[in-house]
Amino acid sequence: MKDVTLGIDIGGTNTVFGIVNKKGSIIFKDSISTNGLEPAENLFERLFEKFNNSFQHYSKEYRIVGVGMGAPNANYYTRKIENPINLNWGYVDVASLIKKHCDVPFAITNDANAAALGEMDFGSAKGMKNFVEVTLGTGMGSGIIVDGKMLYGHTGAAGELGHINIVRDGRRCGCGRKGCLETYVSATGIKRTVFELLASSRDDSSLRDIPYNQLTSKQIYDAANLGDKIAIAAFKNTGKMLGDALTDVVALLSPEAFVIFGGLAQAGEMIFEPTRKQMENNLLDYYKGKIKLIKSGLEESDAAILGASALIWHELRK
Amino acid sequence: MKDVTLGIDIGGTNTVFGIVNKKGSIIFKDSISTNGLEPAENLFERLFEKFNNSFQHYSKEYRIVGVGMGAPNANYYTRKIENPINLNWGYVDVASLIKKHCDVPFAITNDANAAALGEMDFGSAKGMKNFVEVTLGTGMGSGIIVDGKMLYGHTGAAGELGHINIVRDGRRCGCGRKGCLETYVSATGIKRTVFELLASSRDDSSLRDIPYNQLTSKQIYDAANLGDKIAIAAFKNTGKMLGDALTDVVALLSPEAFVIFGGLAQAGEMIFEPTRKQMENNLLDYYKGKIKLIKSGLEESDAAILGASALIWHELRK
Repeated sequence: MKDVTLGIDIGGTNTVFGIVNKKGSIIFKDSISTNGLEPAENLFERLFEKFNNSFQHYSKEYRIVGVGMGAPNANYYTRKIENPINLNWGYVDVASLIKKHCDVPFAITNDANAAALGEMDFGSAKGMKNFVEVTLGTGMGSGIIVDGKMLYGHTGAAGELGHINIVRDGRRCGCGRKGCLETYVSATGIKRTVFELLASSRDDSSLRDIPYNQLTSKQIYDAANLGDKIAIAAFKNTGKMLGDALTDVVALLSPEAFVIFGGLAQAGEMIFEPTRKQMENNLLDYYKGKIKLIKSGLEESDAAILGASALIWHELRK
Repeated sequence: MKDVTLGIDIGGTNTVFGIVNKKGSIIFKDSISTNGLEPAENLFERLFEKFNNSFQHYSKEYRIVGVGMGAPNANYYTRKIENPINLNWGYVDVASLIKKHCDVPFAITNDANAAALGEMDFGSAKGMKNFVEVTLGTGMGSGIIVDGKMLYGHTGAAGELGHINIVRDGRRCGCGRKGCLETYVSATGIKRTVFELLASSRDDSSLRDIPYNQLTSKQIYDAANLGDKIAIAAFKNTGKMLGDALTDVVALLSPEAFVIFGGLAQAGEMIFEPTRKQMENNLLDYYKGKIKLIKSGLEESDAAILGASALIWHELRK
């Protein structure tokens, strides 16, 4: 019997799951719709029904030794999901719900933290002990690894790089405050920057024909590749702000690297180049040329499962 | 025989040392001038000559089981002092120099990190596992404790809260950059703020009679206590900027508390009140009312020795 873990990632729309061995190979994976308006119990009923159906084909060869989960507003210490945005759940005692279906060691954290652990075990941060995973999706998250361990902080909620202030009295954020980094540096943030530039400049741009609610970061990227000045400026401004923020993180945490993950990271050098330039120009002399800025080594489609799995592998090694 | 450690703190002017037991009682302490223009070897020759003379009265009762040191630009990993400002030493292999005089386990770090460890073992942070020590002296430093351990980062240089950017293109800093937090929040920073306010306002102030090179933070504090508007505004502005910075640190690190140490912390509520107010107004909702802002519990005169001693006690427990 080979030991494997079950990794589960709860997203706003879909929940993905899969079994993963110690080396980070996914034996099988599947997904179901999250249905966040229904009680969380229903999700886990449906999930384990589907999972058990599939797993019976593997149960002679593999043994599940732990369950790891990534979820929005998940608290590592309490093992609860706490008032997740977009899911009508309030507080959910996930550990108890999971135990009914699969009574093995269980751990949960938010998706950015899970991504950081996945990166360290199976991705671009293999062998690193001090780095910061930066996730650039609809919003912005981060997971901080210190001395080979996840930094959870006193409450379990550490790592909210998206909610440091980057512009005093800047853009309104979903958290209720103003000027948070994620209002500038995220798929939504770059879209807001495009609209600011469309308003302030008179440059022609293909983006002038797309309404706010339809504009995607992929369209901005494609426009930039075709030489669209507004789109290019939007990537530059976004990278500049990310570079400023990372410079401060270096002073505080002295990481070996930043690993950039998520949709916006797919823009490659379009976002990396201005970020790196701004960071290098502003780092303390001591750090110049020494901080790596690298792209995630996890496949976007597997990252969530691998991260959730890495979380429980880490617990099992403790 | 009772186990004790030797704690040494190298300052720009004086070097203090003392032997300390596990409970943080200083058995005896003394100091010598650092003489930073002479080679570091000379300092340690003089230090151990004086130390050995004193220690012979204690050597029947106490056994030295380790040496801990706090020093400017000290690197925990390499155990070297690296190009310290104000000391004409270049790179000093402190571990080798100490070994000649006292061949027991040795550890070194910068003074803010040592203060954080001293605070955790003997001061206001007893029992805490996640907090940030903020030192407000001529400059500003910090030591970050995560899960009961010092956060050194990849290079050993983590914790430079004084060098995060707080004002884009702000005041020129000793590090060569602009707008670092310590150019606003430190004894020097508040002096600069006073001079800015003396220039911009027309309020009467006793501080208008004191030249820049003579003004101390103690004089600003005394003036504020007498109702001097400029001095009061300077403390408010300083606290506001510190509060902004701590708000970001909370989002990243989720500490239980900030412990404030150093000369400027002696101003008590004059600096704490505006800091706390700014932080509380700006924290993520989740953290409101939950982050402690407390004064160091270490006597200023003993803190350096206790911090250096705590460092090596921590190593010995590993």
